[in-house]
Amino acid sequence: MDTSLTNWNRWGEEDEKGALNLLTPDTLLKAKEHIKQGKVQSLSYPIRQTKVPVFPKRTPAVHFMTIDGGDYKSGMNTPGGMKIADDYVVMPTHGTTHVDGLGHVWTEEQIYNGYSQDNIRSTGAKKCGVEKIEWIAGRGVLLDVARLKGVNHLDSQYVITPEDIEHCMKKQNIEIQQGDIVLVRTGWMSVFESNPGLFYERQPGIGLEAARFLAERDIVGLGADNLTVEPMPMEENAKKSLHVFMIRELGMYLMEMLHLDEFAQEKEYEFFFVAAPLKIKGGVGSPINPIVIY
Amino acid sequence: MDTSLTNWNRWGEEDEKGALNLLTPDTLLKAKEHIKQGKVQSLSYPIRQTKVPVFPKRTPAVHFMTIDGGDYKSGMNTPGGMKIADDYVVMPTHGTTHVDGLGHVWTEEQIYNGYSQDNIRSTGAKKCGVEKIEWIAGRGVLLDVARLKGVNHLDSQYVITPEDIEHCMKKQNIEIQQGDIVLVRTGWMSVFESNPGLFYERQPGIGLEAARFLAERDIVGLGADNLTVEPMPMEENAKKSLHVFMIRELGMYLMEMLHLDEFAQEKEYEFFFVAAPLKIKGGVGSPINPIVIY
Amino acid sequence: MDTSLTNWNRWGEEDEKGALNLLTPDTLLKAKEHIKQGKVQSLSYPIRQTKVPVFPKRTPAVHFMTIDGGDYKSGMNTPGGMKIADDYVVMPTHGTTHVDGLGHVWTEEQIYNGYSQDNIRSTGAKKCGVEKIEWIAGRGVLLDVARLKGVNHLDSQYVITPEDIEHCMKKQNIEIQQGDIVLVRTGWMSVFESNPGLFYERQPGIGLEAARFLAERDIVGLGADNLTVEPMPMEENAKKSLHVFMIRELGMYLMEMLHLDEFAQEKEYEFFFVAAPLKIKGGVGSPINPIVIY
Amino acid sequence: MDTSLTNWNRWGEEDEKGALNLLTPDTLLKAKEHIKQGKVQSLSYPIRQTKVPVFPKRTPAVHFMTIDGGDYKSGMNTPGGMKIADDYVVMPTHGTTHVDGLGHVWTEEQIYNGYSQDNIRSTGAKKCGVEKIEWIAGRGVLLDVARLKGVNHLDSQYVITPEDIEHCMKKQNIEIQQGDIVLVRTGWMSVFESNPGLFYERQPGIGLEAARFLAERDIVGLGADNLTVEPMPMEENAKKSLHVFMIRELGMYLMEMLHLDEFAQEKEYEFFFVAAPLKIKGGVGSPINPIVIY
Repeated sequence: MDTSLTNWNRWGEEDEKGALNLLTPDTLLKAKEHIKQGKVQSLSYPIRQTKVPVFPKRTPAVHFMTIDGGDYKSGMNTPGGMKIADDYVVMPTHGTTHVDGLGHVWTEEQIYNGYSQDNIRSTGAKKCGVEKIEWIAGRGVLLDVARLKGVNHLDSQYVITPEDIEHCMKKQNIEIQQGDIVLVRTGWMSVFESNPGLFYERQPGIGLEAARFLAERDIVGLGADNLTVEPMPMEENAKKSLHVFMIRELGMYLMEMLHLDEFAQEKEYEFFFVAAPLKIKGGVGSPINPIVIY
Repeated sequence: MDTSLTNWNRWGEEDEKGALNLLTPDTLLKAKEHIKQGKVQSLSYPIRQTKVPVFPKRTPAVHFMTIDGGDYKSGMNTPGGMKIADDYVVMPTHGTTHVDGLGHVWTEEQIYNGYSQDNIRSTGAKKCGVEKIEWIAGRGVLLDVARLKGVNHLDSQYVITPEDIEHCMKKQNIEIQQGDIVLVRTGWMSVFESNPGLFYERQPGIGLEAARFLAERDIVGLGADNLTVEPMPMEENAKKSLHVFMIRELGMYLMEMLHLDEFAQEKEYEFFFVAAPLKIKGGVGSPINPIVIY
Repeated sequence: MDTSLTNWNRWGEEDEKGALNLLTPDTLLKAKEHIKQGKVQSLSYPIRQTKVPVFPKRTPAVHFMTIDGGDYKSGMNTPGGMKIADDYVVMPTHGTTHVDGLGHVWTEEQIYNGYSQDNIRSTGAKKCGVEKIEWIAGRGVLLDVARLKGVNHLDSQYVITPEDIEHCMKKQNIEIQQGDIVLVRTGWMSVFESNPGLFYERQPGIGLEAARFLAERDIVGLGADNLTVEPMPMEENAKKSLHVFMIRELGMYLMEMLHLDEFAQEKEYEFFFVAAPLKIKGGVGSPINPIVIY
Repeated sequence: MDTSLTNWNRWGEEDEKGALNLLTPDTLLKAKEHIKQGKVQSLSYPIRQTKVPVFPKRTPAVHFMTIDGGDYKSGMNTPGGMKIADDYVVMPTHGTTHVDGLGHVWTEEQIYNGYSQDNIRSTGAKKCGVEKIEWIAGRGVLLDVARLKGVNHLDSQYVITPEDIEHCMKKQNIEIQQGDIVLVRTGWMSVFESNPGLFYERQPGIGLEAARFLAERDIVGLGADNLTVEPMPMEENAKKSLHVFMIRELGMYLMEMLHLDEFAQEKEYEFFFVAAPLKIKGGVGSPINPIVIY
C-alpha cells in the first residue's frame, strides 16, 4: 500500500470531519438529481437482542420498557385517562447497522489528522468524536458485486479487487465520483441465517487494493453488507488494514452491517443517500438507519 | 376537541405507520424541489450525561468506552500495530432529540388504529413499534413563532394558538400542506442554560387547538424545541391531550427537543426534511438526528 | 404434589419475608456453634461478560470503567496527585450466583402469600421485592449428592429423589432441621467448561418430591450448583413446578449457580451460612456472594 | 502524615488482598463470640433510581423488568400455568452502600502493593480487582461519634479527630483491635432528606489523623454513614488523602453510605460483621449489603 495517500491536513490541522468536507453544496445539488421516482428505502437491520449478529467482545442490544400497557392492566392509576409507555436501550454503538467514527481505529500514536491517541479516553473521544459527523448526505452508489458474480453471496473467503469494481461500474454503467458514498453488496448478511457458524468465521469483503482504488476517487464513505467492510478475519497488520487506511489516513467513513439485499432488487445504482448518526458525545461509532432516496 | 377527527382505518386496519402513509413518491418529488442551496443542518442535541435536559423519571444517557487510547498507553498488546476504540451507550429512547413511536401514548384500551394496549408489553410494542417507521422524509416547514413574537423565547406559560400559526404562515409566506413535517420554534431550549429551574417547571408549547389546525391540514409530523411539543406541565386529561390526539387518533409523529435556534437564523422556512429513527424492535421512541436540506 | 402444604398466612397476611421468619435469634445462636475452625469460603462465581453461563433470554453482565489508569497515562489532569478509577455494571439480576425473590415465579393470579400479581409491574415488585429479604443467615447444610453417587457430576437427566437426600444425610451424619439453608451439590457447573452444549440442554437437579421432603422439614432456602435448582428443561406445568412450590406456596428462597465444588472438598456439611442480597427496590432477584463460615 | 506506615509487601509481593490477610481463623473465632442475642441487621440503603444520593459524575441506578405480571394480564401465553418475572440492573458500583476495591484510588504510578496503574484499564483491574475480596467477615466495632457529641448528626464541616475516637472508645468501653472492621457514625445520611443541598456541598467525616490512629491499630476496614468516609469536599492532595492512605498504602477497605442510624439505637458496639462484595471481575468497587450479627 502506498502510504503517501493521505488526507491529513488537507482540510486544515483543526479538521475533525475528514472526507465529509467533500460534501459541498454543489455535491448535494448534483446528488439531488438522482431523486427521480420519489421512492425511499431504509438500509438498516433492527436493533434487537436476538437473531442479530454480535461481533466478538460485544453483547447484544437490550431494550427495556419502563412502563407499558400491562401496568395499566395491573391497576396503575391514570386519573385523566392518559396512558404512556416508555423505554430504554443498552447497546454497543457498533452493534447493528452503524458508522465508524474517525476515532475508532488507528496505529502508532496518532488518529486521523495527526491527533494524539491521548484524546481517546474513558470519557470518550475529545477529537473526532462521532458527534462531529452531524450528517452524511450526498450521492450514493451501489456496487452489486454479488450480482456481478451471479451469486446470492460471495464466497466466504472472497476478496473484492479493483477489477471487480471496474467490472461492476462498467456493467452498471456508473462512475465513482468525488464525494460519493459507495455501498458494496456481498450478499453475506443472508448467511447469518443460513449458516451462522460460517458467518462469524470468515466473511468476504473489500480488499485493500480495491479500497485504494476507491480512495483515489476521493469518496466520502464506504459501506457493505458484512460485519467489517473488509474481509474477516480482519487484517491485524496496521500497514495492510483497510480500517486504518480508510479511517486514519483518509478520514473516510465506514458503514457496516448494511441491509442491501432488498434494495439491490431495485437495480438503482445511483441515488440520494442520507445517514444521520446520533450525536453521541465522544463516541467512536453510532448506530445509523441509512436511507436511500431515488 | 372534535374527536371525530381520526385516521383509524384510513390506511387499512393492518396499518402501523399512520401519517407516514402521506409520504408518497409525489410528495417526495415535490419536497426535493426545496433543495436549492445544497446546504444541510442537523437539528439534534448531543447525547451526553451532563448539560442536557432530563425528563422526570428518566436518567441521563451514559456513554462507556470499552477500549480506548489509554489502554494502549498502559501496555495493551497490539502485535500488528492496529489499535481500536469501542463503546456502548445506555439511554432512554426519549432522552435527547427524539421521535415518539405510535405506541408511546394512548387512552382507554386502544392505541393508534384500534390496536389493543395488550400489544405494549415488557418485550416491547408488538404493534406500532418504532421500527415500523423506517424513515421520515418529505417537505419540512419551520414556523418560527418566537421570531413572530419578537422574542428570544416564548413566555413559560405561552400556549401557541391557531391564530399564531396563521400569522406565522402569512409572515413567512408559506402554507401548510398535506404531508408536511412541521417544526415549531418556541426558543425554549435556550432556557435550559439560563434558568434550569424554570425550564423544568413550565414550558410554552403548541396548544390543542393549534394542533387541530395543523392536523386538519393532514401533516405527517410535528416537532418543537421543547420537551413535550405541547405546553408543560403536560395535560393529563386524555380528552385534551395533544399527545393522545396526534399520536393515538391521527398516527402523527411528534419530535421533541429539536435544536432549532441555529437553523432559524437561516430564515429558510421550507426544506427537505429527513429523520431516520433507529429500528429498535418494539420501541416506543427513538433518538433521532433530524436533518434539513435546503 | 400435595398442595395442602403452604405457608400463606402462616406469618400474617402482611408477610413478605416468607421462610425467613424461621431465622429466629435462637436459630442464629445454634447456627453460630458450627463456626469451629474460623474458616470462610465464598460460594459465588465471578460476574463477567465471558466464560460464564447465560440463561436463555438473558444477556451477559457487562462491566464498564468510566475512568481508569490509562486516562492518567493519556494526560488527564491530576493537580493534587490523586488518581481514581470508577466503574458501572449492567446485568440481569439472575445472571450469576443469585437468589430468587418471592416475586420471581407464581401461577394463577397470586404470588406468595396471596398477593395479587398486579403488584409485579414494570416499576418492580411492590410486594415481596428482593429488598425485603435484607439478610439470610443461619445454619447451612451441604448435601453432596454427587459425592454420594461417587461421580464428578450427576448425569444430565438425573432427578434427585427423597431417598437420595435420606442416604446423603445418613452418610454425612446430619439431619435437616427447621430453619436450615440447604445446599445440594450436583457437580453440574463443571460441565459448563467441559461440554457447554450439554450444559444448556439438560441439567440434573432436585425433583419435586425431594423438594417436598425438604419443605416438610421447614427449611428457609435451597441452593444448588446448577442453573435452576430443579432439573432442566424446567417444568412448565405449574402444579409440578419446584419453583412455584418452593417460592409461591412456601416463601422459600432458591439460590442458583452456586460454586460448590471447592467447598465440598472440605467435607464440612454443617456451617454458618450468610447471603446478603442487594436491596434492589422492587427486584425479583439479586446477585449474591454467599459465604460459609465453619 | 508519616508516610512510613505501609502494608506494601507485608503479605508478599503477589498480595492483592491487603488488610483482609488479618482476618485469620483466630480472629474469626473471637469475633463469633460477639454473637450473643442472635440478632441481625442490614446496614445498606436500597438500590433505586430516586430518593438516593448520587455522587457527582455518576448516575442513579436503574432497575428494569423484562417480564412482569402485567404481561400475563396482557395475554402472554402460559400453557402450563407457570408465570415468571425477571429483571436487570444498571448501576455505578459505588452508587449505593458499597466497598471500594483496592484499585479504586492511588497516586503516582502505583496502586496498592506497588502494582503499576497500567493494570487498571478499560477491561477492569487486572490486579486488586474487587473480585479478589471474596468476603469480609470478622469483628465489627461501631464508634458512634454523633452520639458522643450528643447530636443527631455532626456539623457539615466537622473533622473527626483521634481524640474523638479515644473518647468514643472510652465512653463505649471498647478497644480497637487488630483485624477490626470499624464503623463510624456521623449521622450525616439523615441530612440527605432534610437538606439535600447541604448534603452534597459539605460532609463531616474522618480526618486523616484519626484514620492514622485507626490504621496503627491494624484494622481491616473502615466504614461510615456519609459519601466518602473522609470529609467532603474530598482532599485532592494525594499526600493528605485518607482514601490514598487507607487504600493504596495500607490495603484497607473503605465502606461508604452505610445505614447506621437504626442499628446505632441498639447501642451494640461490638458484633460479628459480614460484607460479601459481588465478584465483579476487574471491578474497582462493589455494592454491598453489610450485615451485623450480635
